[in-house]
Amino acid sequence: MAFLAFEGIDGSGKTTLIQSLSKILKKQGIPLVITREPGGTEVGQEIRALLLKKRLNPPLPSVETLLYYADRKQNVDQVIQPALKEGKWVLSDRYWASTSAFQCGGRGESEALVNLLREKICGECQPDLWILLDLPVEQSLKRLNKFSRSHLDRFESEDREFHQKIRDYYLKLSHENQEKWLILDATEPSSEILSKLLTHLERKKILK
Amino acid sequence: MAFLAFEGIDGSGKTTLIQSLSKILKKQGIPLVITREPGGTEVGQEIRALLLKKRLNPPLPSVETLLYYADRKQNVDQVIQPALKEGKWVLSDRYWASTSAFQCGGRGESEALVNLLREKICGECQPDLWILLDLPVEQSLKRLNKFSRSHLDRFESEDREFHQKIRDYYLKLSHENQEKWLILDATEPSSEILSKLLTHLERKKILK
Repeated sequence: MAFLAFEGIDGSGKTTLIQSLSKILKKQGIPLVITREPGGTEVGQEIRALLLKKRLNPPLPSVETLLYYADRKQNVDQVIQPALKEGKWVLSDRYWASTSAFQCGGRGESEALVNLLREKICGECQPDLWILLDLPVEQSLKRLNKFSRSHLDRFESEDREFHQKIRDYYLKLSHENQEKWLILDATEPSSEILSKLLTHLERKKILK
Repeated sequence: MAFLAFEGIDGSGKTTLIQSLSKILKKQGIPLVITREPGGTEVGQEIRALLLKKRLNPPLPSVETLLYYADRKQNVDQVIQPALKEGKWVLSDRYWASTSAFQCGGRGESEALVNLLREKICGECQPDLWILLDLPVEQSLKRLNKFSRSHLDRFESEDREFHQKIRDYYLKLSHENQEKWLILDATEPSSEILSKLLTHLERKKILK
């Protein structure tokens, strides 16, 4: 049983890495659950749609924070904790570090409400490992630009500076707790990234 | 300028009282804004729909709490406070007392998260007067039973005990802060209720 949280700016390859890791774990007979935030539950999917929708009068930054934590609470109690209790692995596409990076980093919100909710909602439910797919913002924008602008959600459509602040905040978080964070260079080929993750999981004895 | 919050269990006549009070205020040339929670803003309307929808896997009690406060934050910052700053009256169909009564009373949630969010989100934005339309639960159910069950939302469909706990919690809140609460007997004719409210507003010098 292990809880891995995958983080990184848009286009950094979280979903691809989760998919390829899950294939390897399944081959080894390891039971696992893949989830994502926002949107890991039925209610969460509706919260996700509400958050991502482009609109003239979007939710205020602290309203976004509350919505992210509403989604997270449902996911922690109904998906993450039950899976861990059953001895399964949990691979989560984003967890609380995303809210901290987007809201305190990207939006410049005070850490007071964000940290308070993190303590109240996540408590002891902490990942065994955070995996940061670190990508220069130029690369992220290049990857996102493959899509026409109308296909990008409200966050993907934000400017360079917004994404830069998020990347910086992720790096700050990972430097503050190096024991629990693995920084992977997201510009490398995906096979190389996967290989480095597996080596790290074995070294940390998360994967035996 | 005055901020009035109308509270009471479903079917207690909040909307009717707000409408009739607003007509009188308008006749006196008093500028006012009517709002409601959840649902006072565009984002709030979507949060309201999410909360009221009947479903197999509903939001957990603390998820409901977070969603109510997400709605409230947007409403406080975009509707209530701007109106008060412009010198308008605000008549709000429900405010934080509803969340406390529904979540701590009805759902039996701990007061920790609810009170913490109330302090963070509402802060100094407190009503000049809370108006509780107090109604025995039997009467509420009788009024709601006029509608077929499929027309009732997720909260209206809850059982007698749920509504009783909410009524009890409202009475507790109003007894704790009698100076700021007016309890009106919602079984009385609506003209009588309105008249008592107007007398009280004059006595309290809210209405000059």
